[in-house]
Amino acid sequence: MSNRLEDDEMMRIAEQWITSRGVTIREIGELVMMLQRDYYPDITLEECEFSVRKVLSKREVQNAVLLGINIDRLAERGLLDEPLAEIVRKDEGLFGCDEILSLGIVNVYGSIGLTNFGYLDKTKPGVVGRLNKKNAENRIHTFLDDIICAIAAAASSRLAHDRPD
Amino acid sequence: MSNRLEDDEMMRIAEQWITSRGVTIREIGELVMMLQRDYYPDITLEECEFSVRKVLSKREVQNAVLLGINIDRLAERGLLDEPLAEIVRKDEGLFGCDEILSLGIVNVYGSIGLTNFGYLDKTKPGVVGRLNKKNAENRIHTFLDDIICAIAAAASSRLAHDRPD
Amino acid sequence: MSNRLEDDEMMRIAEQWITSRGVTIREIGELVMMLQRDYYPDITLEECEFSVRKVLSKREVQNAVLLGINIDRLAERGLLDEPLAEIVRKDEGLFGCDEILSLGIVNVYGSIGLTNFGYLDKTKPGVVGRLNKKNAENRIHTFLDDIICAIAAAASSRLAHDRPD
Amino acid sequence: MSNRLEDDEMMRIAEQWITSRGVTIREIGELVMMLQRDYYPDITLEECEFSVRKVLSKREVQNAVLLGINIDRLAERGLLDEPLAEIVRKDEGLFGCDEILSLGIVNVYGSIGLTNFGYLDKTKPGVVGRLNKKNAENRIHTFLDDIICAIAAAASSRLAHDRPD
Repeated sequence: MSNRLEDDEMMRIAEQWITSRGVTIREIGELVMMLQRDYYPDITLEECEFSVRKVLSKREVQNAVLLGINIDRLAERGLLDEPLAEIVRKDEGLFGCDEILSLGIVNVYGSIGLTNFGYLDKTKPGVVGRLNKKNAENRIHTFLDDIICAIAAAASSRLAHDRPD
Repeated sequence: MSNRLEDDEMMRIAEQWITSRGVTIREIGELVMMLQRDYYPDITLEECEFSVRKVLSKREVQNAVLLGINIDRLAERGLLDEPLAEIVRKDEGLFGCDEILSLGIVNVYGSIGLTNFGYLDKTKPGVVGRLNKKNAENRIHTFLDDIICAIAAAASSRLAHDRPD
Repeated sequence: MSNRLEDDEMMRIAEQWITSRGVTIREIGELVMMLQRDYYPDITLEECEFSVRKVLSKREVQNAVLLGINIDRLAERGLLDEPLAEIVRKDEGLFGCDEILSLGIVNVYGSIGLTNFGYLDKTKPGVVGRLNKKNAENRIHTFLDDIICAIAAAASSRLAHDRPD
Repeated sequence: MSNRLEDDEMMRIAEQWITSRGVTIREIGELVMMLQRDYYPDITLEECEFSVRKVLSKREVQNAVLLGINIDRLAERGLLDEPLAEIVRKDEGLFGCDEILSLGIVNVYGSIGLTNFGYLDKTKPGVVGRLNKKNAENRIHTFLDDIICAIAAAASSRLAHDRPD
């Protein structure tokens, strides 16, 4: 029982950390809507946001959110050691740890989320594109952009499981 | 020594199985070129095909190719048991086993391939699109289309490792 | 609604296929109990079996169960093509596709299941050991043994999420 | 060319970071030897250490090593934010991010490494056990212990690919 309360608290914190980095649940919901509209024309933004929150209620997801955002923050504050600091700051293409951490989020609703994750990460629509530009303005979102793509992909998988054709 | 020979033989067989399903190494190379042209404007199709062959030289990749294509063939010949047969025949969105098998290919050159894999699987350019249409004409490519995307994504990761900016 | 019914039907089929290969839900529950007894001394076999059934209620898991068992059966009936047939028949150490398919099951309750999956697959306790011996007696369980380990590992993760210290 | 030099430099740094946390390449080689002795009775510790170094020569592995060790260090120095700080400090069973990061290392030589990774992580032989005890003495090795298991598992897969049967 007390554990369930703690879960709610962890979810509240994960959401708060995401918001503190300038991303709203609504914006993640918009990514889900963009991905799912073709399959379910009657889908609403509320439904998409609800699915995002369901993903965020998973402990595995909360942990990846906290870890990824904390690394971004530490990089901004210059607290990572070199040469890791530069790799994270530059969001180097060969880094790979941001993608692998996100895989832990995507898999929560099965491997069907891999496709949507990759698509978002490559095309960078909406909030993902904005985060990528921010990387230039002394903000570091090396982990956050992949995390947002992963949450949206997992929320889409969840919807697909819930509303199979 | 004898093992090295056997490896060459396995690679020859994997390539032959792919060809027998109507896909050429050149076409997979074209997917790689499409993905990498923006980063390396001087890249050649020969370089891309070479990278595809390097991916195909990995035992892990060969095994996934053989297994995936064999399941597609067995599905065409009506030898899978129901209800699996129908799931594979219809390439059901919730199946997931095709994506997970492809993950074994993508990971061979690191998780940076996840993004390109997802992008190809979603946008279905070139030969991937053709395979998807064929599914309608009594040919079943439920596993092959993901495998082709995965090989192209891994070959792109390999190039990026080899030619970092 | 009709979908929920279909889910129940898929679960019933997955359980039936497992049973038809000589493995009971109780035996998988015993693996879970072996893994969890040290952490939760009051755990019952009923609780463990319940957790196994919860894992089996997931579509991703059902699909992997059906695919893996069908490949084993096709191998027994001599319907796989060479050289794949021999690789599966001999359960070759370098094959890897059995492990990757199982990863799709393990991940359903998060990556914390990786440890228990590997431990079971290496030490082969209880029913897993029996399946491995059967491979010698003209029965092929190349995929099933990994699948059973994966289900038990996922069911253990589920219990750990439910009953954190 | 300059890139190859840089690769050597990155490998030197990764090895140095591991050593600075009290783990030698020899000790990781001993884990590999323990895993492989039954299959290859003539295997030498030199061969095992060589295989560990080959794993460490991969960029994907180096990145995971740097990231994991840096997080452990930041946790020791009290620079992670709560509630993440406590989760890492206590090496909470439900955390999962340490396992997922290690998966990026294991997969470099294919999914056959999953079994050995899980076995080492569960039984904690040799240096892994020592790291786990150190967690109590104000040293935090939440990521390092999984990373060491993953490197040893990947090095074992590499040996198995090189010396099949």
